Amino acid sequence: MTNNSHPLDLAVHLEPVSENLWQGHTQPAYGNMVGPFGGITAAVLLNAVLKHAQRLGDPVSLTVNFAGPIEDGPFTIAAQPTRTNRSTQHWSITLFQHDGQIATTASAVFAVRRETWQSTELSFPDKKPALTLARADTSKAPEWTRRYDMRPIKGLMIDGQQPEHEPDAVTEFWIQDDPPRPLDFLSLTAICDSFVPRIFVRKMGRYPAGTISLTTYFHADTALLSSQGSQHVLGLARATRFGLGYHDQSAEIWSDQQQLLATSHQVVYFKA
Amino acid sequence: MTNNSHPLDLAVHLEPVSENLWQGHTQPAYGNMVGPFGGITAAVLLNAVLKHAQRLGDPVSLTVNFAGPIEDGPFTIAAQPTRTNRSTQHWSITLFQHDGQIATTASAVFAVRRETWQSTELSFPDKKPALTLARADTSKAPEWTRRYDMRPIKGLMIDGQQPEHEPDAVTEFWIQDDPPRPLDFLSLTAICDSFVPRIFVRKMGRYPAGTISLTTYFHADTALLSSQGSQHVLGLARATRFGLGYHDQSAEIWSDQQQLLATSHQVVYFKA
Repeated sequence: MTNNSHPLDLAVHLEPVSENLWQGHTQPAYGNMVGPFGGITAAVLLNAVLKHAQRLGDPVSLTVNFAGPIEDGPFTIAAQPTRTNRSTQHWSITLFQHDGQIATTASAVFAVRRETWQSTELSFPDKKPALTLARADTSKAPEWTRRYDMRPIKGLMIDGQQPEHEPDAVTEFWIQDDPPRPLDFLSLTAICDSFVPRIFVRKMGRYPAGTISLTTYFHADTALLSSQGSQHVLGLARATRFGLGYHDQSAEIWSDQQQLLATSHQVVYFKA
Repeated sequence: MTNNSHPLDLAVHLEPVSENLWQGHTQPAYGNMVGPFGGITAAVLLNAVLKHAQRLGDPVSLTVNFAGPIEDGPFTIAAQPTRTNRSTQHWSITLFQHDGQIATTASAVFAVRRETWQSTELSFPDKKPALTLARADTSKAPEWTRRYDMRPIKGLMIDGQQPEHEPDAVTEFWIQDDPPRPLDFLSLTAICDSFVPRIFVRKMGRYPAGTISLTTYFHADTALLSSQGSQHVLGLARATRFGLGYHDQSAEIWSDQQQLLATSHQVVYFKA
């Protein structure tokens, strides 16, 4: 399978309109309950910077604000550098649809990354390897979940299996694009949002819920991502606080080589 | 002391220029090594929304991107709603200076918050009360640190005291505006950024470092903040990953009544 025919590459595909303007199209393969999976929206917004002629370096952080629904169909993305420094670059990105209404806004920081002192402050979570676990049955979940091979350790809440333990807000799984695809910033961005809302896990049920703001910090560079290939990555997600209609979520994505690739934080609307 | 004469209120003071435009001025009282303390910049950006005629509800999230240095002196803030829904509102905020160059960008989500099911997933960190601990000597630290009464438990790295234990990237302290000021969204926003860069703590020394992107999630509403009054709040900060010139930081701010008021995440440039 060539890279361009992978469903993820189709979903993040952008046609240039002018220097700062791109045209894209939602793909049924990444459909959610309503509109596209938020992770794929985050990835296509990042792609508008990755493809930009003025882009400097690799992504360090990305914040996506889901301001309103995205309808299935074409969309336009405007991406422009707000400020370019010697080794960092700040971006403003907006997704709008036919009527010109803003559906999603984002900001990103890119940087030329160089070797420095390094340390990971968390221990690698010692879990059973992906291939010793059963793949989740996502046949009753939204379409986008079938673009992933998910191997739950706990708290997936997609395959209808109820946990046997006291509920907490934690999900642990191995996840891989299906069909397998070498990991890059685009697929890593989408995977950071591939956890169900924490309220589903904590209250063991389905509730109206949706991400309103999503921030991802990239700890890996291109070389580290390439070395991961298309193997499963380990995802962990938890929450600190539910209340007043919103909850947070913090996630870690680890390579199977025990490297922390990204951490991601979001705030989610819920009704419960 | 009336509210308006508090140094924090002076630092976040904005004069209206037009519906979406405000004029502010840096204050020496919150000066950092170069330019203003990042927390006060975040607070004044939030204030442009709080004071806006079209503002809906309370802040849920705020992301500030420190795109370039802010010079001491006047600045202009443009704040406009990018999308207003039934109970949520998304904002785009930009700080620029005399030459029109963008220094800081931000986005915020505001919402009308209503009681829902609630849970805090972390236990309140059981620490000695603020008033049983000594106040940190910040006489050799930047000016803004003297706008706070900081009572370190561990890892403050502002008062020159070296830790006796194996270094980690954790700071724990009680903090209060000095002079005391009733807690609100403005002061809480600033406090979320009042930790030194994690690299100082983890490597026990001073290194070139600066926040490039800062995201804060507000778990408290106005009523809860009011009930805190001007008592010390408990701040905890840690990191997950240092490498390739950047590290992250996650922080929790707790009331002395054991309520989680805010969580905050940032990515920081460093050289070490």
